[in-house]
Amino acid sequence: MKLKYCTAMCVAALLSSVATANDDIELYGQIAISMYSYAEEGKDTVNRLDNESRIGFRGAKELARAPTLIWQIEGNNVGSGENSGDGQLGLRDTYGGFEDESWGRVRFGRFLTPAYAIIDWPYSNPGLGNVFDWGDDIAGGAYYDRQSDQISWDSPSWNGFTMTLATGRGNNLENSSSNFYGASAHYRTGPLQLHAGYEYGTDRLVELEDEATGSLMTANSDYETYIAGFELYFDNGIGLFGAYKVMSAEYADYNNGTAEVGSIEGLIGKKQDQTSYSIGALYDIGHWQFKVGYSANSDLEIDNRKVSGTADNVLSGQAIYFLDDPALLYFRVKTMEINESDITEVRLGVEYYF
Amino acid sequence: MKLKYCTAMCVAALLSSVATANDDIELYGQIAISMYSYAEEGKDTVNRLDNESRIGFRGAKELARAPTLIWQIEGNNVGSGENSGDGQLGLRDTYGGFEDESWGRVRFGRFLTPAYAIIDWPYSNPGLGNVFDWGDDIAGGAYYDRQSDQISWDSPSWNGFTMTLATGRGNNLENSSSNFYGASAHYRTGPLQLHAGYEYGTDRLVELEDEATGSLMTANSDYETYIAGFELYFDNGIGLFGAYKVMSAEYADYNNGTAEVGSIEGLIGKKQDQTSYSIGALYDIGHWQFKVGYSANSDLEIDNRKVSGTADNVLSGQAIYFLDDPALLYFRVKTMEINESDITEVRLGVEYYF
Amino acid sequence: MKLKYCTAMCVAALLSSVATANDDIELYGQIAISMYSYAEEGKDTVNRLDNESRIGFRGAKELARAPTLIWQIEGNNVGSGENSGDGQLGLRDTYGGFEDESWGRVRFGRFLTPAYAIIDWPYSNPGLGNVFDWGDDIAGGAYYDRQSDQISWDSPSWNGFTMTLATGRGNNLENSSSNFYGASAHYRTGPLQLHAGYEYGTDRLVELEDEATGSLMTANSDYETYIAGFELYFDNGIGLFGAYKVMSAEYADYNNGTAEVGSIEGLIGKKQDQTSYSIGALYDIGHWQFKVGYSANSDLEIDNRKVSGTADNVLSGQAIYFLDDPALLYFRVKTMEINESDITEVRLGVEYYF
Repeated sequence: MKLKYCTAMCVAALLSSVATANDDIELYGQIAISMYSYAEEGKDTVNRLDNESRIGFRGAKELARAPTLIWQIEGNNVGSGENSGDGQLGLRDTYGGFEDESWGRVRFGRFLTPAYAIIDWPYSNPGLGNVFDWGDDIAGGAYYDRQSDQISWDSPSWNGFTMTLATGRGNNLENSSSNFYGASAHYRTGPLQLHAGYEYGTDRLVELEDEATGSLMTANSDYETYIAGFELYFDNGIGLFGAYKVMSAEYADYNNGTAEVGSIEGLIGKKQDQTSYSIGALYDIGHWQFKVGYSANSDLEIDNRKVSGTADNVLSGQAIYFLDDPALLYFRVKTMEINESDITEVRLGVEYYF
Repeated sequence: MKLKYCTAMCVAALLSSVATANDDIELYGQIAISMYSYAEEGKDTVNRLDNESRIGFRGAKELARAPTLIWQIEGNNVGSGENSGDGQLGLRDTYGGFEDESWGRVRFGRFLTPAYAIIDWPYSNPGLGNVFDWGDDIAGGAYYDRQSDQISWDSPSWNGFTMTLATGRGNNLENSSSNFYGASAHYRTGPLQLHAGYEYGTDRLVELEDEATGSLMTANSDYETYIAGFELYFDNGIGLFGAYKVMSAEYADYNNGTAEVGSIEGLIGKKQDQTSYSIGALYDIGHWQFKVGYSANSDLEIDNRKVSGTADNVLSGQAIYFLDDPALLYFRVKTMEINESDITEVRLGVEYYF
Repeated sequence: MKLKYCTAMCVAALLSSVATANDDIELYGQIAISMYSYAEEGKDTVNRLDNESRIGFRGAKELARAPTLIWQIEGNNVGSGENSGDGQLGLRDTYGGFEDESWGRVRFGRFLTPAYAIIDWPYSNPGLGNVFDWGDDIAGGAYYDRQSDQISWDSPSWNGFTMTLATGRGNNLENSSSNFYGASAHYRTGPLQLHAGYEYGTDRLVELEDEATGSLMTANSDYETYIAGFELYFDNGIGLFGAYKVMSAEYADYNNGTAEVGSIEGLIGKKQDQTSYSIGALYDIGHWQFKVGYSANSDLEIDNRKVSGTADNVLSGQAIYFLDDPALLYFRVKTMEINESDITEVRLGVEYYF
C-alpha cells in the first residue's frame, strides 16, 4: 500500500498500492454509542455511556497459484469508562484463509464458533444476551464464543443450504486434549430460514474459588450445546423468530487445591443441564423497525436435581429509526429477572456502519 | 471502505468507498519525538527519548434524515521505554456525534472537559504542564482531563463568540451521583482572544493509602475549578498570553478502611483551595518562533491554613524552527521548583502533523 | 489525510491528503498464520495456531527546509490464544527520522539493534531462533533485540559497503549509566555478502529470583556481543550462509535483597561467556525453495568454568512453495536439544506480505 500522487481528478495523495494491482483492502468499522440506565433492585442505578465503536482492516488477494487469500484484523470496541484491553487490533474476528466460489472458504484464527454465531445473531437481539448469550449457569460454560486457535470451513450456498464445520483448541492450551468441535447448518427458502448448530468440547478447564479458603479449585468438563431455530420474514414487513438451546456438561479430574477434599465435586456435581429459548417478532414500516423479544433459561440441573433460583428471563422492546441506509437511532426498554434479581434497562443509541 | 482499482491517473488500488459516495474518512496523526534530559536535585539525571507519535481515524457521514454524523477513534501515543497501554486505539479523543452549521455539534464519548481544554492549550505550553496542568495538590484533583462517558455541545461561532457545555460521569462509575458539569466560553476580536472555563464535580472518589497500615482510605469530594485567560497576537509577530485558575474541593463520606479512625479526615481536611497562573510571550519571525512562559501554583490551603512547601513554579524558554508548514524542530529549556525540589529539563524534538 | 471524492475513474472516496501534496503514507503488513505441533520429551505435546499477522503505517514527507522526514508506527503481531499486549500499534519497529541519498538516514525510536538485526536475519531462519536468537544462557543477556530509546545512523551504500551506528538506553531507565552502543557493517560483491556486528552495553539490570526465599536479587552487567557471517547466493539457485557469535558479560553491584549474602554472586559469578554458530544451505527451483539450517550454542562458561548441560543445538529443514510473488506456503520440521531436553516441532504455515 503506497500513498501516491493523483494529479488529475483527485488533487491529492492516495493510500494505494503500486506494485500489486490485484490487492483489495478495506478499512471497515462501526460507530455504536449508546446511553443506558441499568436499575437493579436494591442497588444504585448505573448510568453510563457504552462505546462499541471499532475499526478493522480486511483484504483479499488473488494468487497466481492458489485460491484467493482472504484476511481480516479487527480491533476491539474502544470502550468507555475503564479501558483495559479496549480498542486493540486483533482482539475481535481476526484470521487468514482461502476462498473459492466452488468450495467455499477455510479460515484459521480467532472468530465465532458455528453454534455461537447462531446464538449471537439473531437470537440474542434485541438485548436478550443477558439471558440467551452469557446468561446460562453451566459451570465452566457449555460453548465458546469468539475462540482463538480455530480452523473452520464454510460451504458455498447449495440452493439455499449452507453449512460450517470447525475445530480448535479449548481454554486449556497446556492440555493437548482441550479441544472443541462445532458445526452449523442453515437453509433458506422463501420467507423461511432454518438454523441448527452443535458444539462439543473436551477437557475444558473449569475454575472455582473456594470461598472459605480462597483456594483455586479446578475440574475438566466435556460439554455439549445444541441449538435449533427459525426466522420468518414476510413481504408485509412482519417477521417472527425463535430458537431452542440445550446445554450440558460432565465433570472429571476434580482438584480441590488447598480446599477441603470433595468440595468442588460437591459444588458442581458430576453433570449439569440447562435449556434456553428465545422468541421474537418485528415489524418494518417506512424508515422504522419495531421489535420485541423474550428469552428464558430454565433452572440449572445438577445431577438431575433442579437448583431453585437459577432460572432467568428477559422481555425487551425496541424501536429503530433509520437515519440512512447504514445509520440508525434506537431506543430499547427491557426488564429482566436474573437469578431472582429484578433489573430494568433503558437504552438510547446511535449506530453507523462503514 | 473498499480498495478499488484506479486504472487511469492513479495507476493503483485505492482505499476507497464504493457504496457510500458521501463518506469522508481521514487517517490523521502526528510524529512527535524528542530527546530530553531531566535533572532533579539529589537524583540521577534521566536521559530519555519521548515518542508521542500517534494515529487516529475520523470521519463524517452526511445522512439522509439527520444532521451529519461525525466520529473519531484516536490512538494513544506509542510511547517509548515501558509500553503498558501505549499505542492503543480509542485511548485518546474518541467519540461519535452530530454536527450542523446552524447549531454546532454534540458529541458522546471520551474527550477533554471544557475547562481542561483551556488549561491544556494554550496555557500549559511551552512545557508548563508540570505546574499548570497536573501540578496542583488538591486531594483527588479539582478537574478531570480527558474524561469518558461525556456528552458535550459546542456552539457555532456567533460573531467570534463560541461556547461549550458538557456533562458526564465522574471517576466512581458505581456511584450514580459521581458526575461532572462543565462549560467554557471563548471570544475573539481583532488581536484579542478571551477564554473562560468552569467545572463542577460531585462525589469524586478520593483514594489515599495509609502509610502506617497500607490500608486504602477513601472520601468523596465535590470540586470546582474556574479559569479565565487572554491571548493577544499582533501583526508584528509578538504575542502575549495569561490565565488565572482557582481550584477547590470539599470532602465528605470519609472511610478509613482498616486505618485508625479519623486519619483521612485529618490528612485531607474538610476543604482544600489552591490557585495557579500562567503567563507568556512569543515572537514569530521568518521560519522561527521564540516563546517564553512562566507558571506558578500557590501554596495549598487545607481548611484555610496554608501548607508550606506545596507551591510550585516553572520558567520555560523555547525556540521553534519550522521545517515546513506541518513540521518543526524545537529546543526547550526549563527550570522548575516542584514542592521544594529543583528540576532542570532540556529537550530537543521534532514534530510533524498529517 | 482526507477522504475525498474522486468523480472520474475512481468512482469513490479516497483516503487522501488535500493540503499536503507531497505526503507519502503506506499501510503495510503481513498475514502469517501457522499450525504447529511442539513435542518436548516427557511433556504433553502442544498443538497450536500461531498468528503473527500485523499491520503498520509508515510515511515519508519531503520538507521545504530539511531532509525528507520518515516515520513508521508498527503494530504488534495479533497473536492467538492468550492475548496480552498483542496487536497494539507501536510495539514493533516504530520511529521517526530523516533520510537523504547522500548521507543515509538517522532514526529515533524503537527498532532492532545493529548486531541483533544480523542475528535475526538471515541467521535465525529457518526456525533456528530457539538456539541462535533467544537460546543463549548469559545471565541478563548479551544483546538487546528491539530496543526503545534508540538513535541510529544507517549509511548509504558505498560500492556495496554499508554500515550502521546506534546508541540508546539500556533496560534500567532509572540509571543514567544503563546504555548500549552498537555497530554493524555489510559488504556485497557478486554472489557474496559479508556481515559484521558488535554491541556493548553498560549497567544492564540483571534480575534473579532466589528460589529459597522468593526474594529478588539483582546485579548490573557490562555485556558484549560480536557476530560475523557470510551469505553466498549463486545463479544456479544454490545458497550457503554461516555466522559465528561471541557473547560475554561481566557482573557487579550484586544485591541479594533479603536472600542470603553472596547468593547472586555465587549463582552468576563475575563473568560469563558463550559462543554460537549458525550455518545453512538453500536451493531455489521454480516456485519452490528448499532450505536446511543448523545452529548450536556452546556450554556456558561462568568464570572460565564450563557449566555442563547448557549447550543447545537445532537442525531444521523447510520447503517453501510460492503461491505468488508476495505469498507462500511453508512446511518446516526441526529437532532441537535445548539444555538437555529433546524437542521436535512440525509447522505448516502461510504468509502474505502487503
